[in-house]
Amino acid sequence: KRRGASGHLLKLISKTHPADMAWVFRHLKEDERTAVFDIIVHTDYVGEFLSELDDTLVVELVTGLEAQYVANVISKMASDDAVDLLEILPEELASSIREHMAKKDREEVEELLQYHPESAGGLMSPDFMCLDEELTVGDAINSIQKRSQEKEMVFYLYITHGETHLSGVLSLRELLMHPSDELLENIMNPHVISVNTDTDQGEVAHVVSQYNILAVPVVDTNYNLVGIVTVDDIIDVIREEATEDFLQMAGVGKDRDILLKSTKENAMIRAPWLFASWIGGVVSSFIIAGFSEELSHLIALAAFIPVVTGMGGNIATQSSTIVVRGIATGRVNMSEAYKLVFREMQVGLILGLAYGVFVGIVAFLGYSDTALLGVVVGLSVFISMVMAATLGTLIPLILKRFDVDAAVATGPFVTTSIDLLGVVSYFFIAKLFLGL
Amino acid sequence: KRRGASGHLLKLISKTHPADMAWVFRHLKEDERTAVFDIIVHTDYVGEFLSELDDTLVVELVTGLEAQYVANVISKMASDDAVDLLEILPEELASSIREHMAKKDREEVEELLQYHPESAGGLMSPDFMCLDEELTVGDAINSIQKRSQEKEMVFYLYITHGETHLSGVLSLRELLMHPSDELLENIMNPHVISVNTDTDQGEVAHVVSQYNILAVPVVDTNYNLVGIVTVDDIIDVIREEATEDFLQMAGVGKDRDILLKSTKENAMIRAPWLFASWIGGVVSSFIIAGFSEELSHLIALAAFIPVVTGMGGNIATQSSTIVVRGIATGRVNMSEAYKLVFREMQVGLILGLAYGVFVGIVAFLGYSDTALLGVVVGLSVFISMVMAATLGTLIPLILKRFDVDAAVATGPFVTTSIDLLGVVSYFFIAKLFLGL
Repeated sequence: KRRGASGHLLKLISKTHPADMAWVFRHLKEDERTAVFDIIVHTDYVGEFLSELDDTLVVELVTGLEAQYVANVISKMASDDAVDLLEILPEELASSIREHMAKKDREEVEELLQYHPESAGGLMSPDFMCLDEELTVGDAINSIQKRSQEKEMVFYLYITHGETHLSGVLSLRELLMHPSDELLENIMNPHVISVNTDTDQGEVAHVVSQYNILAVPVVDTNYNLVGIVTVDDIIDVIREEATEDFLQMAGVGKDRDILLKSTKENAMIRAPWLFASWIGGVVSSFIIAGFSEELSHLIALAAFIPVVTGMGGNIATQSSTIVVRGIATGRVNMSEAYKLVFREMQVGLILGLAYGVFVGIVAFLGYSDTALLGVVVGLSVFISMVMAATLGTLIPLILKRFDVDAAVATGPFVTTSIDLLGVVSYFFIAKLFLGL
Repeated sequence: KRRGASGHLLKLISKTHPADMAWVFRHLKEDERTAVFDIIVHTDYVGEFLSELDDTLVVELVTGLEAQYVANVISKMASDDAVDLLEILPEELASSIREHMAKKDREEVEELLQYHPESAGGLMSPDFMCLDEELTVGDAINSIQKRSQEKEMVFYLYITHGETHLSGVLSLRELLMHPSDELLENIMNPHVISVNTDTDQGEVAHVVSQYNILAVPVVDTNYNLVGIVTVDDIIDVIREEATEDFLQMAGVGKDRDILLKSTKENAMIRAPWLFASWIGGVVSSFIIAGFSEELSHLIALAAFIPVVTGMGGNIATQSSTIVVRGIATGRVNMSEAYKLVFREMQVGLILGLAYGVFVGIVAFLGYSDTALLGVVVGLSVFISMVMAATLGTLIPLILKRFDVDAAVATGPFVTTSIDLLGVVSYFFIAKLFLGL
């Protein structure tokens, strides 16, 4: 072990909460990270630190270590955190680490690895407190006292019929309120809210936040208790899903670690989403070129292209964001989808009328020698905005209907298609009204 | 009381969790809502139901009731929920309800009302379990057993020095692990994570999720324990703040209940944000009109306006979303802001170069008689994208620097200013290269 500066650093690190350390670490330079991790890696602190750290950084750090060493670290971690770590590592490294783990730990981890990482099974911890319903309150308190320090928080006691069949729930506090010879089955709450191993993590988050509970038991198809998902994991799920939706709406993929990527990786992640916009731009250039005869008769037409596409694009973004977020928070009821589309169309009519008139007046005043230009521009803004509000609502609803993540395809695709439709209708209206 | 249909409905309602009832209620028609609430209002269930319901609906329902009746309902609610309800009602109604409350309840509520609703004081519940550090484990268990059924969840016991000075924390489970004659001060954890009454709710959420705790004690300036914020309220804060950021980024204000508003209200909320886009569109029409001489020489120039503004707008949205979300989740470190701007500018250079070349080739092939048009269009897309990535990063960072909510002003303003800059630079480049 080194002394001096490292000694001080070691002291400082051991006094810092692993979550704070992860936060600091994220903002360090490359060489500082190496120096700090060299110290952390030799402390008991390393497991908790890694479970708080961003995936991208974890992969970088762990890849440089020996498989046997990582196996030792992972064995000491809570098994749900251990599984999360193994899941982000390259397949080859992960299986080499698993081989270096003791049989019992390996089996526990492999049990959990079979579940989809975004399901209740993938989130759950197998460390929970469960008691047979035929025990008395006194037995229960004894057995709680006997359990050694657990990693998971305990606040609910799950009650089983036989070894594993979930039959009720009891809070630690309720347990204390009853005489010690009372049977658990007489005081437990038999209406347990539970989820299945393959319930989607978003749904698990919904259950936990809907019912204000601190943990939800996870059962298999035979209603055997196999794990619990705690509220701290749910908070992470809610934050992560919101971040992914933000990024997807903006057309940046869904990698939450984008700020930690290199410039080149960042550009590569974003390039494909800009392609939609590029295609749209090229197609609209062909459309406009197709009307160059009309344009040459009235150059002023060109001046209003951006306002037609801009107003449409903005109201489309409003509508689609409201719908995408409404779907994510459970506020949009699919059985009433048609009502929502109809309502947004009405909003488009109102706002399209208002802004169409405003733009029309500007066009009329600016180009008084072509009085009809005001009508053409105003009508085009109106139509573009009505279409945009309607399609901006419809597209995410249709995606949802076909179980496609609404956030993915909404952002860039909606604005691009609105651009195109806006340009086309603008020139058709111009042709019609101005007889070009 | 009515019978028949209402009787069945009453039975159904009493068996439904209030949170589920609120969910169903949201999707009922106006007259169905009235019928269902007529039943709910006469049950003990009404308080919990109202605390789960959306603000807009609560205001509608409560406005129709007598102040005395609402006062009775509110007195039975958890005081933090009671305060939340009073805060959303019209001032006159709220104070009339307060006057109808019993003195003790009114004082408790008025104590909480003095805090900002988005601070720890506004979120906290004054119902918590605290014990003097000089008590023994046995005394503590007795006192827990004596407390009648509380509304708030109990999992941490806060330990005080004297009546109210916060000195430590202990979990209910840790309490059970120690002999009954042990003093609390010897077994408590003296390093309590706490927040101040005026800590912003976002910061409280950050603390709770950072340290994976289930509740955080709230202290006044003298470190006296005055309340606790529980994790279920934190989940609501996280969800609500994410929803507000989504809406603000899309330029829809920040009213989370927008899906429950009438068409007219909805349009009114959205109109002002479209104004930014309208101004931008009108200004760009003047700019383009200013170049009508150049346009008349080369009509093809008009065809590429949408691609120049579109590519810029899309990369600006990407950059600003990454930064706004990064600020919200604490991933963006303001002391390194210049590095982030520089990096995004580099991403803009890479992507601008790639898509500039692609667009340039299309322009060159499409208009081979004006070979330089390809260069003009390509260069314009490149410059527009570099400016967009840079400004899209810079604007939210500057807003944050001046403590303005970055999400508010980012969406519509960034895209509008990028549109304008894109159009201006496009025509200047055209003028320069094509000698029009």
